[in-house]
Amino acid sequence: MDTAMCSLCKRREAFFFRPYSGEKLCRKCFARSIENKVRATIAKYGMLEYNDRIAVAVSGGKDSLSLLHILGKIEEDYPKASIVAVSVDEGIEGYRDEALKIAAENCEKLSIEHHVISFKEIYGYTLDEIVKRLKTRGKSDLTPCAYCGVLRRKALNIIARKVNADKLATAHTLDDETQTILLNILHGDILRIAREKPKTDESHPKLVRRIKPFCEIPEKETTLYAYVKKIRFQDKPCPYSSEALRNDIRVFLNRMEQKHSGVKFTIFNSAERIRQALKESSEKEALKECLECGEPTTQEICKACQMLHELES
Amino acid sequence: MDTAMCSLCKRREAFFFRPYSGEKLCRKCFARSIENKVRATIAKYGMLEYNDRIAVAVSGGKDSLSLLHILGKIEEDYPKASIVAVSVDEGIEGYRDEALKIAAENCEKLSIEHHVISFKEIYGYTLDEIVKRLKTRGKSDLTPCAYCGVLRRKALNIIARKVNADKLATAHTLDDETQTILLNILHGDILRIAREKPKTDESHPKLVRRIKPFCEIPEKETTLYAYVKKIRFQDKPCPYSSEALRNDIRVFLNRMEQKHSGVKFTIFNSAERIRQALKESSEKEALKECLECGEPTTQEICKACQMLHELES
Repeated sequence: MDTAMCSLCKRREAFFFRPYSGEKLCRKCFARSIENKVRATIAKYGMLEYNDRIAVAVSGGKDSLSLLHILGKIEEDYPKASIVAVSVDEGIEGYRDEALKIAAENCEKLSIEHHVISFKEIYGYTLDEIVKRLKTRGKSDLTPCAYCGVLRRKALNIIARKVNADKLATAHTLDDETQTILLNILHGDILRIAREKPKTDESHPKLVRRIKPFCEIPEKETTLYAYVKKIRFQDKPCPYSSEALRNDIRVFLNRMEQKHSGVKFTIFNSAERIRQALKESSEKEALKECLECGEPTTQEICKACQMLHELES
Repeated sequence: MDTAMCSLCKRREAFFFRPYSGEKLCRKCFARSIENKVRATIAKYGMLEYNDRIAVAVSGGKDSLSLLHILGKIEEDYPKASIVAVSVDEGIEGYRDEALKIAAENCEKLSIEHHVISFKEIYGYTLDEIVKRLKTRGKSDLTPCAYCGVLRRKALNIIARKVNADKLATAHTLDDETQTILLNILHGDILRIAREKPKTDESHPKLVRRIKPFCEIPEKETTLYAYVKKIRFQDKPCPYSSEALRNDIRVFLNRMEQKHSGVKFTIFNSAERIRQALKESSEKEALKECLECGEPTTQEICKACQMLHELES
């Protein structure tokens, strides 16, 4: 291939081709384009107020650290806003401990305060202990991912509330979002499409509103951003990773995107329209507080407490 | 494998295992189960009235001939109902001519009248001629399938109206429907999900209402029905067949169904719920009559007339 010039600055050599826009970009313009896209996404969905305290969910992986870097940069323009990193220590030896160290390093470098909450302190078990329990009891109908997903979500909300955050930002990318959309259709879980939007509704005073500033950026590009910015991140996969169906969907979508570039954006937009229709047609589920832990839930006992009972029974 | 007994009659040897229900079925009970499923689907969606004149769209392939056999059987129970087969001759040498002969044979055997309408008589061109024209003019942005789909749809409506049909039954299976649902999501064509339901709305006096009595039956089983009933059908693929994206989706869905049996039903039900939400939230597009041919359309000039102009320009 000939070395091509950057379509934006027209001065530096391009290193990345963006198939769905036709742009060829140099490192500098690429990084700026990602930052601008995040600003545009925040504006489009009204994700942030000028004086928000923003908790960024940081796992130590490439996406969440890229997000922390970008939101840290954006926050500098808003003197009344503040930013804080929050992490969940599920208790996965040889994996999360390493990731948390990397997360802490990044926070220090960026001078962003960092708070960690652990499964052990709020649930009494590490994920390692939960998995061991599941195995010895032969209760294997739910995967570790199913447990971890529910428990992590609750933990993130608790830590975000503890640090007085107005918004909880997660690094879900366009890929995560489109996979989840198809997953929900394949599971018949249509209401979840309505619920999982780029900025969640204000539904309960104890539920911190979640925002996804990367929801319109392909994972390939959030990863590339981390490389370009020389961000140190953990790239080991989780030892319990077992989402077989999601993985099949990921492979399918990547294949589709390769053949028909832009198809992930189209799916994302389709879901936006389905969401709109569902919103207009359906009643919202009212949130109450879990009778056991007091956290917001649609049921009497929240899913996390139910799972822990199941484990102990 | 041990030879197993049929789960229904418990007398004859099973020859088919239905993964999503766990049933093992003999030939006789299998065929009856398909016929019963068609009756149940017709009842569920209120597809037919006791005195309907039903046009069955027959291509000469396995699905449409299975449907003709089953609807012919059901119609016998309704003295005021009548049934007629309609076919479209697109003009594909060595393919459709053969299929139409087979369709005619089946109709004769079943004593069902058979009407054929051709692209040549209503549009002035056979599909072969259209494809040749597209090639020589280098107008290859649309595939033959894209042309054929639009023109066939219009032709079917014209012939159904000509034979005074109240309903036009097509043999779209669960597989066709779930492929179309994903295709529409990947194309961002959400309104089409709302429109393409098991029984279309009464939207214009010149548009015959379409019904899909096979919409909840996997293609595997409509095919098997044709074999069990020793129905003669054409099984050559169309020489112009080129729906690459649909084919990728088909492969993906079959893979998913193999791993998670019943997933196609779940997708179908997801679409029903999306449809419901869209119906409640959105205004219906009003149908007018095409300024050129007088057929119902949402635009000034119908898509078929637009395509023919494009071809002649």
